[in-house]
Amino acid sequence: MRKRIITARKFVKPSFAYLIEKKRDGGEFNHDEIRFVVDSIIDKEMPAHQLAALCMSIYFQNMSAQETATLAEEMMLSGEVVDLSKITKPKIDKYSTGGVGDKTSLVLIPLAAACGVVMPNMNGVDEEFVISNLDKLSAIPGFSPNMDLKKFVSQLSDVGCVMSEQRSEIAPVDEIIYQMRQLTATIPSLPLITASVLSRKLAQGAEGLVVDVKWGNGSFIKDLEQAKQLARSITRVGRSMKRRCVALVTDMNQPLGDTVGTALEIKEAIKLLKGEGTEDLQELVLKLGMEIVRLAGVAGSTLSAKQTVQRALEEGAAFEKFKEMIAAQGGKTDCLDDPSKFPEAKFVRKLPAPKRGYVHTINAGMIARGVQLLASTKRGGKLDPAVGVSEIKKVGTQVKQGEPLMMIHYNDESKLESALEYLKSAYRLAPKRPNPPLLVVERVA
Amino acid sequence: MRKRIITARKFVKPSFAYLIEKKRDGGEFNHDEIRFVVDSIIDKEMPAHQLAALCMSIYFQNMSAQETATLAEEMMLSGEVVDLSKITKPKIDKYSTGGVGDKTSLVLIPLAAACGVVMPNMNGVDEEFVISNLDKLSAIPGFSPNMDLKKFVSQLSDVGCVMSEQRSEIAPVDEIIYQMRQLTATIPSLPLITASVLSRKLAQGAEGLVVDVKWGNGSFIKDLEQAKQLARSITRVGRSMKRRCVALVTDMNQPLGDTVGTALEIKEAIKLLKGEGTEDLQELVLKLGMEIVRLAGVAGSTLSAKQTVQRALEEGAAFEKFKEMIAAQGGKTDCLDDPSKFPEAKFVRKLPAPKRGYVHTINAGMIARGVQLLASTKRGGKLDPAVGVSEIKKVGTQVKQGEPLMMIHYNDESKLESALEYLKSAYRLAPKRPNPPLLVVERVA
Repeated sequence: MRKRIITARKFVKPSFAYLIEKKRDGGEFNHDEIRFVVDSIIDKEMPAHQLAALCMSIYFQNMSAQETATLAEEMMLSGEVVDLSKITKPKIDKYSTGGVGDKTSLVLIPLAAACGVVMPNMNGVDEEFVISNLDKLSAIPGFSPNMDLKKFVSQLSDVGCVMSEQRSEIAPVDEIIYQMRQLTATIPSLPLITASVLSRKLAQGAEGLVVDVKWGNGSFIKDLEQAKQLARSITRVGRSMKRRCVALVTDMNQPLGDTVGTALEIKEAIKLLKGEGTEDLQELVLKLGMEIVRLAGVAGSTLSAKQTVQRALEEGAAFEKFKEMIAAQGGKTDCLDDPSKFPEAKFVRKLPAPKRGYVHTINAGMIARGVQLLASTKRGGKLDPAVGVSEIKKVGTQVKQGEPLMMIHYNDESKLESALEYLKSAYRLAPKRPNPPLLVVERVA
Repeated sequence: MRKRIITARKFVKPSFAYLIEKKRDGGEFNHDEIRFVVDSIIDKEMPAHQLAALCMSIYFQNMSAQETATLAEEMMLSGEVVDLSKITKPKIDKYSTGGVGDKTSLVLIPLAAACGVVMPNMNGVDEEFVISNLDKLSAIPGFSPNMDLKKFVSQLSDVGCVMSEQRSEIAPVDEIIYQMRQLTATIPSLPLITASVLSRKLAQGAEGLVVDVKWGNGSFIKDLEQAKQLARSITRVGRSMKRRCVALVTDMNQPLGDTVGTALEIKEAIKLLKGEGTEDLQELVLKLGMEIVRLAGVAGSTLSAKQTVQRALEEGAAFEKFKEMIAAQGGKTDCLDDPSKFPEAKFVRKLPAPKRGYVHTINAGMIARGVQLLASTKRGGKLDPAVGVSEIKKVGTQVKQGEPLMMIHYNDESKLESALEYLKSAYRLAPKRPNPPLLVVERVA
């Protein structure tokens, strides 16, 4: 399973304490040292407390682009590497740091496939308050994200895109390190995030990567500067690994689009796949879509990239590819053609504006928590597909007192009060119109 | 066993990940949080990897004097606290960070006791290359450092001083944290060293503490600035704990005195107890001794402190007290009266100067390693008491080519060659006389 190049020259195994000390003092690991650490984690020879101390040293002292690239590569080689060499089309994946109301992956993956780009997409762990893509897709009856690597490859060959769940054969060391990072407050380490993302995406067969780094109150990255650093880190390290990478730093200080939920978001995604929907999501889909087709070499110029993407939306090819992908993964497509067939919540009520004014700020994280609360079921795991919020008034919108800030869809009245607390606290109204938020802050290539 | 003040108000237990994150971001722990961590370590409820990450966060972000004092107090209260209230004399202990050829504790503990200061001395783990006080005392036939706390207290009451080994009842949480620090490269953390030292020394019954912080190539602190910081940290935190503390920062860039070994060092200590010996050790004994008697209130002025210490040496009271302590702990004192009775090595040879010149620098750590190698026995544990080095030429001494830089005492010829490599490499000769090293660099009170 693990494919390793054995070096001929002798490598004397260092102690873990020595490696921790080296990083603690700002030293740079060489390839042998990184390979030794990855091997030792996989072989369960590195004690958990020493891995923890190493992660914290890396948090404080960082890693160079070269070190991070080597770590990503060794992590990638810790498991299966999907072989897509028989598929001649370009293979690109999209990675987002995750955001509230973000439907772009649901749209971009079939959209890019419709443009001739193969999209081998696996979905890993998300921030706890974010509803994942697979949670959303689970609103479609019959749809399954579960498949083995053989089916993963054959669907890519047949359909051109997949949205599957993470396979344990892919970069297994990443799962161990990620769990350790969760327990030791080292999740935000830039080189560790970078190596985690790249090791997985490249092991899944992507030749290039388009990254959406979100910053703001609905992202785990609250600070714009940090988001820019992560965008630079992934693209720089991706380059060191001889892969094409481009990253956009985008706003996540309000929900994207006007819905948050599962079926509600799928319905919004369907609109977007037809070239409709809210302005912010349309812009983001277009910009990220253009990056994908250009990175893949399907379009040469900005203009041709724009035309390629717009045509796939307007002519219905993106939507058809979405249905094809859903069908290939066992999903019933009748509700996609007639979204009124999706389950609907028993109750819908408005969240009234407490006074007149402009929507000044929205805490997207609070909205996500409110929706999570409404959607959670006693048996844990699966979310109630019918619930969520819609018709979200976005930042800059003028409202009268009592006018709805959003519509709340719910089935369980006992949860409403607590959910309302989150949802109410998300909104700040002000007498003056705020400056419009800048959706795409920076492009890093 | 654990004496804890239960606070009436409610304390909601935080998650360990939250506490790690708080320290990672430079936050300050409150008393409840520190007590919770110490309790959780003792109760084995804090996983090792989270303790490791916390130690590394503390390494990078430090702790305030107040935090460190609270940690030291909670660590102290994690086990038995020796009650010396029935002994009316002042109780002071001496702590040294450890150095090569350092006999001062062997001298100061009986010396101070002879001056009327009770010295409750327990000896913990030392740096691996340093021969510990208890290793040295083991050269005296019959001497035992092992005793329970009852005997510890009664010997203090009867004799006025003890040199025992560390008891596991004293600050048990310190042992757990110390072991973790060894494995995670967090030994050099100033607040963790400070809390470790103070928790142990105060739990052993000391009311005040005289600290010798050594810096240089024979200390684990290679950097003078770090040594000063540690001296300031211990005295500042000691003050926060309402204890009297004074620290000297002293030179450890060459061995102290002119011997390194076990019996060889005991013999040198006996000279010092009689007011003889090398200049550097005499100066250090006098200065540290004066600090102890002043801190204890036995002497009011510098002059009277000096007279008190010198009289105890010259009139033989210090040496008599040493013999009394050794006898109380089972040791035979005939070899103390006639040091020629100590075991002697089969072979003695010189380390010849490779050229003429002045001793420019001596790497004390290298000498320690050379002696450790000669003294190690196959069965591990006990060192060969007869071996070591003597007549060490100190920095600034002029030597002719071939003249001995030191005399090497050894029993096992097979080890000589490797030991010589260490010993030779310790010396740098130069044509010009170097500036004399400053023995006591700073006094911090």
